[in-house]
Amino acid sequence: MARVFNFSAGPAMLPESVLCQAQDEMLDWQGSGMCVAEMSHRGKEYMSIAAQAESDLRELLKVPANYKVLFLQGGASSQFAAVPMNLLRGGGAADYLNTGSWSKKAISEARRYCTVNVAASTEDSKFTRAPSQDELKLADGAAYVHYTPNETIEGVEFPYVPETAGIPLVADMSSTLLSRPIDVSRFGLIYAGAQKNIGPAGLTIVIVREDLLGQPIAGTPTMFDYKIHADNDSMYNTPATYAWYLAGLVFKWLKDLGGLDAMAVINARKAKLLYDTIDASSFYANPVQPDSRSWMNVPFTLASSDLDETFLKEAKAANLTTLKGHRSVGGMRASIYNAMPEEGVQALVAFMQEFERRHA
Amino acid sequence: MARVFNFSAGPAMLPESVLCQAQDEMLDWQGSGMCVAEMSHRGKEYMSIAAQAESDLRELLKVPANYKVLFLQGGASSQFAAVPMNLLRGGGAADYLNTGSWSKKAISEARRYCTVNVAASTEDSKFTRAPSQDELKLADGAAYVHYTPNETIEGVEFPYVPETAGIPLVADMSSTLLSRPIDVSRFGLIYAGAQKNIGPAGLTIVIVREDLLGQPIAGTPTMFDYKIHADNDSMYNTPATYAWYLAGLVFKWLKDLGGLDAMAVINARKAKLLYDTIDASSFYANPVQPDSRSWMNVPFTLASSDLDETFLKEAKAANLTTLKGHRSVGGMRASIYNAMPEEGVQALVAFMQEFERRHA
Repeated sequence: MARVFNFSAGPAMLPESVLCQAQDEMLDWQGSGMCVAEMSHRGKEYMSIAAQAESDLRELLKVPANYKVLFLQGGASSQFAAVPMNLLRGGGAADYLNTGSWSKKAISEARRYCTVNVAASTEDSKFTRAPSQDELKLADGAAYVHYTPNETIEGVEFPYVPETAGIPLVADMSSTLLSRPIDVSRFGLIYAGAQKNIGPAGLTIVIVREDLLGQPIAGTPTMFDYKIHADNDSMYNTPATYAWYLAGLVFKWLKDLGGLDAMAVINARKAKLLYDTIDASSFYANPVQPDSRSWMNVPFTLASSDLDETFLKEAKAANLTTLKGHRSVGGMRASIYNAMPEEGVQALVAFMQEFERRHA
Repeated sequence: MARVFNFSAGPAMLPESVLCQAQDEMLDWQGSGMCVAEMSHRGKEYMSIAAQAESDLRELLKVPANYKVLFLQGGASSQFAAVPMNLLRGGGAADYLNTGSWSKKAISEARRYCTVNVAASTEDSKFTRAPSQDELKLADGAAYVHYTPNETIEGVEFPYVPETAGIPLVADMSSTLLSRPIDVSRFGLIYAGAQKNIGPAGLTIVIVREDLLGQPIAGTPTMFDYKIHADNDSMYNTPATYAWYLAGLVFKWLKDLGGLDAMAVINARKAKLLYDTIDASSFYANPVQPDSRSWMNVPFTLASSDLDETFLKEAKAANLTTLKGHRSVGGMRASIYNAMPEEGVQALVAFMQEFERRHA
């Protein structure tokens, strides 16, 4: 069977050239006689792979020198606890923006460790928009401000970076990191599960300003202490070596493509094509306020949910897979991360228009 | 370059047939048009891969029905905290056997959560033997007994499973799981990082008796609560999907080979060949008491440490790699996990004898 256009929200598509290189190197990485997955993480070969990946990621994101870049395990869900454990630093409260399913999860976990001040919530509007800067009610003495720049399930993306008057800003960038340039210096800590724009599931990237490290609360597991990982170049214990290597191949692919400026142009074009198609139709609908629409995750509904199963079946027959919306939202969702080629979005749009002609 | 015989302590060799299958399926798993790393973990295809891997692992280890098998992240080092967090269950103390570098690490982390009773220690004898059953001084009211059946660094393996008079026995089996049959019913909880006998680093297996679940201590991160993972078939969050798939291929390979009974025969033969070679020589030495010698990790020294560099260099030229001993022990270490072919050990032994002839 041919490769499909896979619109999964994550784990998601990987660049085909990355998979081809991994395939070529599977039994013998560059004359080493080993698969990268077989290499000691303390050996010269693997250390060079790991360091190169970090260096390329730093270059792509222009990470300032006073930030550590960590390659961890456990997913964003582990960071939901690790963030308060590391960043409360004697404080008892933190600000959280409640903008969708993932920020709700982050809030729920943080409540186990501190008082959460919900500094803004868009739950009333069913999470169909990002709150404006003016809506944010930051608490006095909050240790940090946490938000989710892109809500994977609702397809809501902040069009701006919140101002926090010097309070460290923490962002769960799982479904947006590397989709466009960001100014890392605006953030205290950024984290992201790899399985959208970075690499395979099982790897988690944390980018953290050095001065925030080293004051974990009592009871923090050593493996949740960012400073331990920072001091050990993410090799306090055996990291997810193969996932790290694949992420490195993705970083190279991004650099070859022109970096995040180039990627942003492509991503904007992909998202525009899909939203324009939805907006031009009375058959498809996306509920998100235009200025808050995600470049990465595009939920949409059909004129009748009775057609959902047919849509999914016919789409799959056209090699367009994993379009079913999250159960909490319904309808469809097209996740169009970096590795989704423009041809994939073009094929989806053509299919949608053809489907509408036949079923409207 | 030809494939090498890689004696790394972990990440370690994978069976060549497993790598070949992963290579074949890299761009298209069985007609799906996707790499397994690209699949949604909630999709039918991936769910079947995950379930089959669990079922094969259960079959290999004859896991009783009242045990959960979890596919987690974070390595054994995460379990060092998760074990006390989940298993103290209102108790304030646990028994630990101190038998080498890894049990020391487990003890050190457990001390953050409870009183550790060191029920036996072989530190006086420089960790060159397993303690006998008679030496174990179990504390009254200990919530569990923790030990490390195989110490990867020192090359010490317990020749028996400790009796604990009904107290749940917890074992860090990272470097021994799947090397031979075990009676899972003797254990309350077994955990193992994957990167020795199971698959790539970044996957951690936990096998736990159901009645021990559900009473985590306050402050336990949700991601460290075994019951959460048990209730969600290890898919509370996105698991390390590709590593899980590769582990499944390893389980199939083990089954095709005849399961753990067959594997044990091969492993015993490999270990015997290497220890016999060492013992027959006055040039090589292994410090471990014969009844406590590991089947998986064989440290050995040369007559003079001045020859270490030459040995490593010449071994590498003969395609025998990653033989350097852990810095805490010195000398050499040959890790001969399941995926190390007998020909690899034969080649190592031939090289050692030839090296001795030239340098003794």
